[in-house]
Amino acid sequence: MSIDYKGLVEKYGSPLYMYDFDYIENRYRTLKEAFAGKKSLINYAVKANSNLSVIQHLAKLGAGADCVSIGEVRRALDAGVDKYKIIFSGVGKRDDEIEEALKRDILMLNLESEAEMKRVEMVAKALGKEARISIRVNPNIDPQTHPYISTGLHENKFGVEIDMAKRMYIYANKSEYLNPVGIHFHIGSQLTNLDPIKESAMIVADLVRSLRAIKIDIKFFDVGGGIGVVYDDETPIPERAYTEAISEATKGLDVTLLCEPGRYMVANAGAFFTKVLYEKNNDGKRFVIVDGGMNDLIRPSLYNAYHKIEAVGAEGEKTPADVVGPVCESGDFFGKNVPLPPLNHNDIIVVQSAGAYGFTMASNYNTRPKPAEIALQGGTDRLIRRRETYEDQVRLEKEFLE
Amino acid sequence: MSIDYKGLVEKYGSPLYMYDFDYIENRYRTLKEAFAGKKSLINYAVKANSNLSVIQHLAKLGAGADCVSIGEVRRALDAGVDKYKIIFSGVGKRDDEIEEALKRDILMLNLESEAEMKRVEMVAKALGKEARISIRVNPNIDPQTHPYISTGLHENKFGVEIDMAKRMYIYANKSEYLNPVGIHFHIGSQLTNLDPIKESAMIVADLVRSLRAIKIDIKFFDVGGGIGVVYDDETPIPERAYTEAISEATKGLDVTLLCEPGRYMVANAGAFFTKVLYEKNNDGKRFVIVDGGMNDLIRPSLYNAYHKIEAVGAEGEKTPADVVGPVCESGDFFGKNVPLPPLNHNDIIVVQSAGAYGFTMASNYNTRPKPAEIALQGGTDRLIRRRETYEDQVRLEKEFLE
Ligand SMILES: Cc1ncc(COP(=O)(O)O)c(C=O)c1O
Ligand SMILES: Cc1ncc(COP(=O)(O)O)c(C=O)c1O
Repeated sequence: MSIDYKGLVEKYGSPLYMYDFDYIENRYRTLKEAFAGKKSLINYAVKANSNLSVIQHLAKLGAGADCVSIGEVRRALDAGVDKYKIIFSGVGKRDDEIEEALKRDILMLNLESEAEMKRVEMVAKALGKEARISIRVNPNIDPQTHPYISTGLHENKFGVEIDMAKRMYIYANKSEYLNPVGIHFHIGSQLTNLDPIKESAMIVADLVRSLRAIKIDIKFFDVGGGIGVVYDDETPIPERAYTEAISEATKGLDVTLLCEPGRYMVANAGAFFTKVLYEKNNDGKRFVIVDGGMNDLIRPSLYNAYHKIEAVGAEGEKTPADVVGPVCESGDFFGKNVPLPPLNHNDIIVVQSAGAYGFTMASNYNTRPKPAEIALQGGTDRLIRRRETYEDQVRLEKEFLE
Repeated sequence: MSIDYKGLVEKYGSPLYMYDFDYIENRYRTLKEAFAGKKSLINYAVKANSNLSVIQHLAKLGAGADCVSIGEVRRALDAGVDKYKIIFSGVGKRDDEIEEALKRDILMLNLESEAEMKRVEMVAKALGKEARISIRVNPNIDPQTHPYISTGLHENKFGVEIDMAKRMYIYANKSEYLNPVGIHFHIGSQLTNLDPIKESAMIVADLVRSLRAIKIDIKFFDVGGGIGVVYDDETPIPERAYTEAISEATKGLDVTLLCEPGRYMVANAGAFFTKVLYEKNNDGKRFVIVDGGMNDLIRPSLYNAYHKIEAVGAEGEKTPADVVGPVCESGDFFGKNVPLPPLNHNDIIVVQSAGAYGFTMASNYNTRPKPAEIALQGGTDRLIRRRETYEDQVRLEKEFLE
């Protein structure tokens, strides 16, 4: 696809997030087809990119939603995701979130501790409802990824150990207000190695079998998200190999296979556009200063994440430059030692693969407005979120000035 | 001061930011008095905590403002800071920001590159105005602090070298549209060592002297921000020692001394309150899960910053626990191995010293609403920013649903 970056930035302003909806559709269909012959449900992990139009686009294709706050559940519902395709995960749920999730009758709540289970039971009881639940098992498998997004080891806050899970299932099965219908694991994000996923699936499938032996019947087998994407030169896991590994691990079990991809769906569909303000040279070190900042896209700063960076239409010999924003921190950068041609004021820089964990993590640091977001679909572009204004930013505090 | 944390959380909800305005006032007066006998101006660094009421509080005491975006300039003006006490700093300014700053006739624009100077000149010329400027000198001094907040070395994007600064002053002095009135440096944040500041001040004062020799008369000597505070067991720089070092470095120069403290003014004045959801034990490791998350306060995750954490009113033997939020990342924590008594649902956790770079860096990650902010002053409490709602979060995108 050849995108008229310059035209888009002129039309919508800078900095700007752009998502290719055709690419997202292709990702969804590819993964769904890889599950062919199996009962499957793809629950898009809303946290990766929670723009309502992005969710709506996936909902129309048949996707469910994996949500980690009542806000995300509301987004999914507002965007048209069927309530019986919505799951509510996360280590910490407030009582009011549990209550609303039960009232809205979503598919299930995914539990991560015994204490949480007791609170869900208490809230369900007060409502006179039965809560459909799943339990997140921590298989203690090293996912071989960045420590901040690795979640499958016991030293992490996520999930419960196998023994604890079993005890919880037995408790839930006896409870009048709990209905254990699912099982869940998620060992990390940006996984490019299939083995840890397969190993985890086998451990968890064994648990399902031993639960079946005591007449606890698990219907949803949720393998979490985490499918890695290409930022640089990674070799991602082929969809077929992924689904086959899961099918094999669950052989003989009559379950619906669920997965919760976030990054896989949207990372490579997105790009972040920013304009060059000036070039600068400090003691021989070259800096390209752009109008986007770490408040817009914090991944390089927070995870030291790599994003491919290109200049649009600029010509000339490339030399290494740090691409940095206007924010008052040395951590405010998009890339270091990026080979770039000489650049001029208003030249456009594209930060690739910014569709996941980009806008959702944006802040107003330095009183910078959150960027606009646009969608490209079938050759046309449209706004899907307005750029913030100064007034938007002070709206909740101005009235309190004395 | 004994604060009724429980009462405040009941009244305003959780999570919550609280700022002690009396403490802020005391900080301002202490620093101002340490400058007694010198012409001085304290330009509060708005980026540290940009709540309009916080800025207004400082403005009433006589403070100016150090701003790094036109949004921060507007905040300062809306909060009542005198325009002739406002400076606009930062490595990257857009043309429209430069234009508005010139039209609003603020004290000066602080420049960080030759290219930026040329753009300011161009914009000033188009407006038929003379731009008052200062230049940020990079003295190449190691401030001995965290690399992300260290800014005084040449490998950083900030400021210009001495030689370049001199050339820029000569150019600006000749330009019809530029008026070089100030000089500036800022070598880093959370400085607890006076020597690097003093050394830098001496280097920059020498430059002022050599400019004077060629009839370029600098009126404002701006030593930046960066005064460190106590998070744990740091020994902060005494105010008197700080101002005396600067006075000594500038001896014989007829300049107004400017400083731009952010953290110093507000960090220890603030606290972040969050409620316990549940306790959890994973393989012997204790977790306290609270309703606040890294989206509310990202410093522990981003800088591995230490904040003192206490439980309100809870009794019993203390054992180490990780205090973590509900966000779906292992990086979502407030403290690790914090000694805490056994805790129950709804117990209150106080994260101390959260007044600077707390709320300003907050995001809506996981569709979590930004917390409310309150002020304590003279024994009374009041709301200074409303808690966000779900509707606030989707306001700019809902209309684009198809
Ligand atoms: C439980 C759970 N499911 C799904 C995801 C989505 O992960 P990814 O975007 O890597 O697919 C996450 C991410 O943190 C998660 O914690
Ligand atoms: C130029 C400038 N001045 C002032 C400050 C405020 O620093 P602090 O909060 O450490 O006082 C900063 C912080 O980054 C800065 O970059």
